[in-house]
Amino acid sequence: MKAMGGIPAGFVPAPNGALEIERHPVGYWIEKAGGTPLFLYDVERVEAQVAAFRAAMPSRIALHYAVKSNPFGPLLDRMAALVDGFDLASRGEIARVAHHDLPKSIAGPGKSIADHEAALRAGAVVHVESEGEAQRLCDVATHIGIRPKVAIRVNPPFLLKGAGMKMGGLASAFGVDAERVPNLVAYLVDQDCDFRGYHVYAGSQSLSEDAIVAAQKATLDLVVELTGKTGVIPAEVNLGGGFGIPYYSGETPLSLRVIGDGLAQALKGLPGSFADTKLIIELGRWLVGEAGVYLTRILDMKESGGQIFATTDGGLQHMLAATGNFGQFLRRNYPVINASRMTEEADTVMNVVGRLCTPLDLLGDQVALPADTQVGDVIAIFCAGAYGLTASPHDFLSQPKALEMLAQSKG
Amino acid sequence: MKAMGGIPAGFVPAPNGALEIERHPVGYWIEKAGGTPLFLYDVERVEAQVAAFRAAMPSRIALHYAVKSNPFGPLLDRMAALVDGFDLASRGEIARVAHHDLPKSIAGPGKSIADHEAALRAGAVVHVESEGEAQRLCDVATHIGIRPKVAIRVNPPFLLKGAGMKMGGLASAFGVDAERVPNLVAYLVDQDCDFRGYHVYAGSQSLSEDAIVAAQKATLDLVVELTGKTGVIPAEVNLGGGFGIPYYSGETPLSLRVIGDGLAQALKGLPGSFADTKLIIELGRWLVGEAGVYLTRILDMKESGGQIFATTDGGLQHMLAATGNFGQFLRRNYPVINASRMTEEADTVMNVVGRLCTPLDLLGDQVALPADTQVGDVIAIFCAGAYGLTASPHDFLSQPKALEMLAQSKG
Repeated sequence: MKAMGGIPAGFVPAPNGALEIERHPVGYWIEKAGGTPLFLYDVERVEAQVAAFRAAMPSRIALHYAVKSNPFGPLLDRMAALVDGFDLASRGEIARVAHHDLPKSIAGPGKSIADHEAALRAGAVVHVESEGEAQRLCDVATHIGIRPKVAIRVNPPFLLKGAGMKMGGLASAFGVDAERVPNLVAYLVDQDCDFRGYHVYAGSQSLSEDAIVAAQKATLDLVVELTGKTGVIPAEVNLGGGFGIPYYSGETPLSLRVIGDGLAQALKGLPGSFADTKLIIELGRWLVGEAGVYLTRILDMKESGGQIFATTDGGLQHMLAATGNFGQFLRRNYPVINASRMTEEADTVMNVVGRLCTPLDLLGDQVALPADTQVGDVIAIFCAGAYGLTASPHDFLSQPKALEMLAQSKG
Repeated sequence: MKAMGGIPAGFVPAPNGALEIERHPVGYWIEKAGGTPLFLYDVERVEAQVAAFRAAMPSRIALHYAVKSNPFGPLLDRMAALVDGFDLASRGEIARVAHHDLPKSIAGPGKSIADHEAALRAGAVVHVESEGEAQRLCDVATHIGIRPKVAIRVNPPFLLKGAGMKMGGLASAFGVDAERVPNLVAYLVDQDCDFRGYHVYAGSQSLSEDAIVAAQKATLDLVVELTGKTGVIPAEVNLGGGFGIPYYSGETPLSLRVIGDGLAQALKGLPGSFADTKLIIELGRWLVGEAGVYLTRILDMKESGGQIFATTDGGLQHMLAATGNFGQFLRRNYPVINASRMTEEADTVMNVVGRLCTPLDLLGDQVALPADTQVGDVIAIFCAGAYGLTASPHDFLSQPKALEMLAQSKG
């Protein structure tokens, strides 16, 4: 048997023994959605995460949602009532939230002229990633006659320690190296741009409160230093995000209180001249990751070479990261259960696989499931709310696309 | 500078210095297609691969195309005139070739009742992967009144040595362990199925002729052994495929002649009772992989931390495997060139990245490109014809989908 990640807190069995989500067993939702494979997003869990963020963080911190983590339309519409802005990564994402009258920003190293034009027309703050991009943006803005709101994505001279994905302290496709930022600010001011400030993203998926606070503090210090050189007080600073969630055995959830207290302490050191600067934390995975459950039905049970294989109607085409094939160096098991038999003892070692003709398509590697696991049972993979379906090759082998649905019992 | 794979033979510059494909510079095709990113598939190269296969292989070997490797419609329509059958992996793939009156088979560990019904109605040979599947298939067949054509996917007790992906010799989601096959044959015959034979797939992406021939010979030996136990001469045997193409530095193309000679030798040992058995080799990657070129345009050039970054309008959302994030343990560079400046010396080390907000999105890691490489130039990534767009998360970050097009100057 190999280890798997822990089931996120609060997922319990329904009276019928199946996994319960939003006061109903999974079968209820599968019937409503029309079948499996199904991504189910629990709205109350998202609301709870936002509430936890608000309770722990200093009140001046604005919360933006990183749409790339999960761009499912109904989820975005619910999110619009919960957060203070949307952070976007493409003009496709602009279109997904264009009907919401919230602050928007767009970042990303490969913006085209079409992207710039869409961003300007949507009133989004454009986070430029290079001097060349700044110049092209100014050209587009002049051409269409819109004064651009611009922030500079800074490649910081530090990184988020212990992050699943480091994005600072190195040569990088993301952002302008800090030492060249003052010249770029001068250029933007000279071009009569609406210079908004900075975006510093040092890494993502960190489970260390200390590392996150250290990166936030380093970001504030960097911004103060840059401001000393430019003389321009930034209207806003995106402190990045990086809040991780536990996927694997031995990982534990972040304490938001520790981060909030650390950030509050760091803010005391911020000069009074930044009193009106809007401070933003941008989160995706932490807000929605644990709210999502991927449900896939067992189509076949077989034995081979002394091992049991449960083959499902899902697989890597919907949940690439859970198969260990999306940036992971070693494959480890996400939390996996038999959602039809949550109250039965998980005492039998099995492999849970997808339906693709590749050994990569492994959703659970020698995980413990109930002995009675059988064809027709529903397998649940947790932590499926972020970087799930859209981060997976869903056309691979021309299999049916997964369904997506909000689990909400009210409203 | 880091190594990259060699450009497939025969790709040369056009008179204007750009990469030529099918007698035209890439710019011609990009204009015809309507822009970048663009997957361009060179039909003549596919034809040449098929011709090379026919010339080298014993004449009794039938060639099937593995649709999963590239299911682009116009390519399938051309392929229909070149190969002897289609090997399929889903009912979605059945629909893609349903209008072609060629032999079809369907394999895969997670077939649903809907898959079985579609396969039976399409007249496809169903390759069953377990005893349970055989039973469900017979039930569906009885229910809809079609006598099923069935072959057994065998999990062989050997593997394809040196394969990029091993699929035999181990506990496996694929196929029935060889020792249990005779009982399953008896069951199928007893159920009055049209028992067709066997499908043995020992691995894929091998660049060793000896290993491929050894697997083919072991497959024939296994089939003879199984036939000795069952007394049923198989009407057909799918010998698998596994022919690799060079992606990385130091890899060299297979010699089909060596494989063909080895297979001819192995066939001499086949008992006369198998004279009417159809022998099939199933290829995907080897037929189309090198015929595909992924073209993506540079949107930004920048310097960070002493390195140069060329950011393109493509990325891992279209060519996941080229970024090293699809089953590869170590990231290595596919062949990458500046297709706008093929005649200029590649003397400057650069990173070629995609436009996604993740450091995973790296198409060329410190590769040598011409010093004049600039915004607007077209980057070509070779070996993009198989497991490209459909094996990539093309909705990720809601970026525009890549275009696909056949490069054909005639017909």
